Amino acid sequence: MLKLIKTICLLILPVMLFAQHPQTFFTKKEAASVKACLTKYPLLTKSYSDLKNDVDVWIGKDVDVPFPKDPAGGYTHDKHKANYTLMFNSGVLYNLTGDAKYAKLVKEMMLKYAALNPTLKNHPEATSSSPGRIFWQALNDANWMVYAGMAYDLVYNYLSAAERKIIEDGAFKPEVDFFTNDLKDWFNLIHNHAVWATAGVGMIGIATDNKDYIDKALYGTEKDGKKGFIALMNNLFSPDGYYTEGPYYTRYAILPYAVFANALNNWEPKLKIFEHRNKILQKALLTCLQQTNIDGAFFPFNDALKEKDFTSNELVTTINIFWTAYGADKNLLTVAKKQNRVFLNSGGVAIAAELASNKNISAYYPYKTFESTDGVKGDEGGISVFRIGEGANLTSLLYKYTAHGLSHGHFDKLGIMLYDKGNEILTNYGSVRFIGVEQKYGGRYLPENKTYAGQTIAHNTIVMDETSHFNGKESIAENFHSDKLFSDFKNPAVQVVAAKENNAYKNTHLQRTLYMLQLPGNKRMVVDLFNVQSDKEHQYDLPFQYNGHLINTTVKYKANSAKLETLGKKNGYQFLWKEASGLAIDTIVQLTFLNKNTYYTISSLVQDSAQLFFTRSGANDPDFNLRHEPAFIIRKNGQNQSYINAIEIHGKFDPVYEFSSNAYPSVKQIKSLWQDVNYSVAEFLIGDKKLIVAQSNNKFEKEQKHSILNFNWTGPYMVLYDGKKL
Amino acid sequence: MLKLIKTICLLILPVMLFAQHPQTFFTKKEAASVKACLTKYPLLTKSYSDLKNDVDVWIGKDVDVPFPKDPAGGYTHDKHKANYTLMFNSGVLYNLTGDAKYAKLVKEMMLKYAALNPTLKNHPEATSSSPGRIFWQALNDANWMVYAGMAYDLVYNYLSAAERKIIEDGAFKPEVDFFTNDLKDWFNLIHNHAVWATAGVGMIGIATDNKDYIDKALYGTEKDGKKGFIALMNNLFSPDGYYTEGPYYTRYAILPYAVFANALNNWEPKLKIFEHRNKILQKALLTCLQQTNIDGAFFPFNDALKEKDFTSNELVTTINIFWTAYGADKNLLTVAKKQNRVFLNSGGVAIAAELASNKNISAYYPYKTFESTDGVKGDEGGISVFRIGEGANLTSLLYKYTAHGLSHGHFDKLGIMLYDKGNEILTNYGSVRFIGVEQKYGGRYLPENKTYAGQTIAHNTIVMDETSHFNGKESIAENFHSDKLFSDFKNPAVQVVAAKENNAYKNTHLQRTLYMLQLPGNKRMVVDLFNVQSDKEHQYDLPFQYNGHLINTTVKYKANSAKLETLGKKNGYQFLWKEASGLAIDTIVQLTFLNKNTYYTISSLVQDSAQLFFTRSGANDPDFNLRHEPAFIIRKNGQNQSYINAIEIHGKFDPVYEFSSNAYPSVKQIKSLWQDVNYSVAEFLIGDKKLIVAQSNNKFEKEQKHSILNFNWTGPYMVLYDGKKL
Repeated sequence: MLKLIKTICLLILPVMLFAQHPQTFFTKKEAASVKACLTKYPLLTKSYSDLKNDVDVWIGKDVDVPFPKDPAGGYTHDKHKANYTLMFNSGVLYNLTGDAKYAKLVKEMMLKYAALNPTLKNHPEATSSSPGRIFWQALNDANWMVYAGMAYDLVYNYLSAAERKIIEDGAFKPEVDFFTNDLKDWFNLIHNHAVWATAGVGMIGIATDNKDYIDKALYGTEKDGKKGFIALMNNLFSPDGYYTEGPYYTRYAILPYAVFANALNNWEPKLKIFEHRNKILQKALLTCLQQTNIDGAFFPFNDALKEKDFTSNELVTTINIFWTAYGADKNLLTVAKKQNRVFLNSGGVAIAAELASNKNISAYYPYKTFESTDGVKGDEGGISVFRIGEGANLTSLLYKYTAHGLSHGHFDKLGIMLYDKGNEILTNYGSVRFIGVEQKYGGRYLPENKTYAGQTIAHNTIVMDETSHFNGKESIAENFHSDKLFSDFKNPAVQVVAAKENNAYKNTHLQRTLYMLQLPGNKRMVVDLFNVQSDKEHQYDLPFQYNGHLINTTVKYKANSAKLETLGKKNGYQFLWKEASGLAIDTIVQLTFLNKNTYYTISSLVQDSAQLFFTRSGANDPDFNLRHEPAFIIRKNGQNQSYINAIEIHGKFDPVYEFSSNAYPSVKQIKSLWQDVNYSVAEFLIGDKKLIVAQSNNKFEKEQKHSILNFNWTGPYMVLYDGKKL
Repeated sequence: MLKLIKTICLLILPVMLFAQHPQTFFTKKEAASVKACLTKYPLLTKSYSDLKNDVDVWIGKDVDVPFPKDPAGGYTHDKHKANYTLMFNSGVLYNLTGDAKYAKLVKEMMLKYAALNPTLKNHPEATSSSPGRIFWQALNDANWMVYAGMAYDLVYNYLSAAERKIIEDGAFKPEVDFFTNDLKDWFNLIHNHAVWATAGVGMIGIATDNKDYIDKALYGTEKDGKKGFIALMNNLFSPDGYYTEGPYYTRYAILPYAVFANALNNWEPKLKIFEHRNKILQKALLTCLQQTNIDGAFFPFNDALKEKDFTSNELVTTINIFWTAYGADKNLLTVAKKQNRVFLNSGGVAIAAELASNKNISAYYPYKTFESTDGVKGDEGGISVFRIGEGANLTSLLYKYTAHGLSHGHFDKLGIMLYDKGNEILTNYGSVRFIGVEQKYGGRYLPENKTYAGQTIAHNTIVMDETSHFNGKESIAENFHSDKLFSDFKNPAVQVVAAKENNAYKNTHLQRTLYMLQLPGNKRMVVDLFNVQSDKEHQYDLPFQYNGHLINTTVKYKANSAKLETLGKKNGYQFLWKEASGLAIDTIVQLTFLNKNTYYTISSLVQDSAQLFFTRSGANDPDFNLRHEPAFIIRKNGQNQSYINAIEIHGKFDPVYEFSSNAYPSVKQIKSLWQDVNYSVAEFLIGDKKLIVAQSNNKFEKEQKHSILNFNWTGPYMVLYDGKKL
């Protein structure tokens, strides 16, 4: 054993003496420290051995580098994707084993790319304004550059000067030139794709010692700093680390930041890249993690695949890099444990060591009530996540009052979602996409993603006149954002956030105030006061996209039993089957549904009258792309309208013990005691107790005194239960 | 501590000397042995403490014994149910602690029942032919008798002679008389309800030293042995332990057998009740457990709630009793561990001890390929469960060719189900019922249980002329059963079962042969040859109730995008929305769907022509009782018809890694090389390899030689892959 190690050292040492490579993924010092620990910590050993097994099957084989032809999900796409991963992994192994066969594999593949890349024109399946060459879109070419760049750096010392020239000129230069010339405008965008693009060019720059590439990457093709990687760090996150496309895309966006920042930090530590903008990258990660369900799935703000969670590769990489860059954060161990693999860098070693020795790792990430602003300056609205409970019994209420979220934004201003016990209760559809599934449009976003999932009706917020916010136009929506009016989380039993939206519909003011209450007896309830004022009469629909089986409703409805038609013709309505409809006059409407073992009831006051619709998605879906999910829609007409809703979490259904407890809602009555532009006062009868929610609708100062009816209070709101403050 | 134990001993001892009680739940000796271990094993300690906490809240309280009024799920129903559990638990605690407060609680409740029961007439909500008095149905009264009987026995020694007389005359005699006189016919039935009824009367007999009750319980009201508990042991299970209503009801039926057999065994060990009929009760338990999914859920043969699994109370009780009665069975520890609680008897102690010391408990019950006959003599068909793989990667194919299954039977002769990796893939609907949920018809079976879930179209077998088997009439169906023709499980790579059904439709012969194949490359595939011969032309529908998202189909179909109608008008068809339909001529039709991370493809040969329907349940469901589940239905017309189907398990969908592999089926073509009453020969092109399945349709002897086309083989079938036997 000793002899073997000695031999390996002799193989590596001479090269190390004369080179500053590798430095993109790790330095030679870091590589040595990883190598020393490979057999020490089970998770590191496993991760190493998984990676080695993946690579070893290719040793001695002639790896195909096919001429690009297929879209995502097709052979050439998947092959090139597998190839850059293979080259990177093999490069890592070369440094950890010193075995030349791994470097040889990278070299041979690189030489094939050096032959292929100069011959490429735009990909035959390219459809976007940023076509790729190896792949159908430039984004994937950028992925290739990041990993191929690191792979090259990792085997740099193995290559002869002649080989280096062939690869740099053949494999890399055409791609860098394509990005910085042909796709210059795209490369210089402030957009997550540009993070990959700049990281790709910059990574190749560091790998090939090309300062020009690095400068273009850092400061844009004009090298003026208005574009490029640093500008993207300044402009893609809010000061809190919120990424405007939402957490699903934070995951994606953060990876190139993390890997390129890591390379930059090795290349020039004086840049202090990880410190930049008050450690914005660390904030981005932590804000992203707070936006996950207890199972790790990202909250589906905007386009998001619900299957994706924090065990994804991007967050393995990021957490492992940040562990070293920002120091140990024990909270991340919960995530790392579920990821069940580590990166073969110093962070990965440290995490594997912690996981091997630390027996007290929490089963759940330490979720907390939190808010985050949107917008580069933090002045473009934001999100609030209300939380009650902990561990498996966590309830999370999500409130969105952000800017639009670029091309992945959904039209759901003042939209809400509710999670309870790890289950989606009030849902957003997420994305209509089967990622990587060739049969489903090459794994790309399906047409229904825009025509249904992005439309307002697929969310939980008001739709006016069956038309989505901003008429469903991104070009309009991106000019505006909602605004938070106030929030108060000091009392965990009464968490409150109010926000407004004035631009989603012309001459129309939407204002929604959410209260997450913990009532005596550990009862959790959301009170939702949603007011709308407009300059003329309109139709307002408030949908509740609920996840569960309908158990009971107080609505008298007519079911469309033998024939179904759609609720509407456009703006997402054409995808909803109208299963039943009813009319309510001067009453409260209630709908109880069961999700797993818990009951949930939506109670809503109807003054005058409202139409009620029970719908299910799946109409006009000839390709079977949609899931079939129910919604309960409350339709009111008028100029000014208000919705007073209570959403109760109650009872228990136990099919094993055959018991059902508290299956009925405790909300017995709702009254609007006062409603105008200045005040809303609502009274809820909860069993035999009265709950009063009183709020100012336009004065939100903490010290402001208010008086209406017999109620007097200070600050924007007051909640009374059984005559006393909660 | 020593002093406390001494005091308790002094309290109990004098009583023990003069009484033979308790003996129903445990004897005084067994109680002492449980007591001695209460703090020794964590699971026993927890179970004891859970039970004590449940009871302690009632100590000193006046427990309500309400006048019966409500149906299942309502207050009086749930209260009486809670009461008998409370009395029983408190009786157990009295014996384990010696604390008189527990006996006092039982006494006071018993005296209330003694006052109430003589005043009762039939329950106001009674709807069945076996009305209850305390509950809406007699079955629940029988449950009460079993537990109240044990409770009484457990505190017998605490009661004065006068108290005993009041309780025996007031609480018990009216119920026993009601059962053995008013409900005599029902009491004497061979039916699972009668197991409860006889156990109830017998338990009271043992508890009150009433030999007349015991004899009626054991041998029927006429005491001739043709009815009663022993007859029920002889006649309710097949010799293999299969219970004709299916495993969901085995669970329910086995509990009164177990608890009453336990009491009988203490009362008169010479009965050797557990040995009766070659240990039929043990066989029933083990056969039941083999009919569960890897998550413990019972396979939904006939009426079954899919939420119910082997952690249910009935199986906790049964396993804990059988551990002592039949000796330790380490396989049961997997189940006991998931149950996470034990009964406070000697079996519970032993299991808790094992779970405390044994670190090598398998995560999964040792599932195996198995068959079981149906019918008292084992000659009324049966079931086959084909299995490949193990642990989380188990595939189970279920084939049903049983008798009808009494009042809970479904009309699905030769029906199949498929489970893979713990997920339902080809499904039966299960039951339309929300157990214990008052809003849903008092928690009872909903009307759609008979009109949809029980009908043939809700399963995976042939429907002729849109009419269910036996015209959906139990009175006809109960006279018949299917028959197995042969099965062969010797080669795990080729598992085969053939069965026939001649009575489901007049003058029509249904014959289905299933092959579960393990092809090279670890590929799992079901080949399904379903032949039908009739005396005249009919319409045949073969539905595949699949669980997953449709990914792709080769069928050219017309989608009903903006308007939906039902597939038919009756026999379950009225509950199916016709989402799309198509026509296929001389081709193979394929449908690929995705369930979690695995692809499944149904491929079926169409000679001449077939209509194809893509349906979803949920039509004509004005009360929102149904789930909305898809099916793919192949409709053929003719006198004789055959379906040649392949069901492939393939590929992997990984949304976290964004990879999809083997998403396309490998079946490229299907040919029928020969089809008549004597032989079926089918050829499948799997990639570029040929799979030949040749079978005799009427000669099943092992030594029989067959020759057709160029194929020669011995025995009922031959499977060739790439020219060689698998």
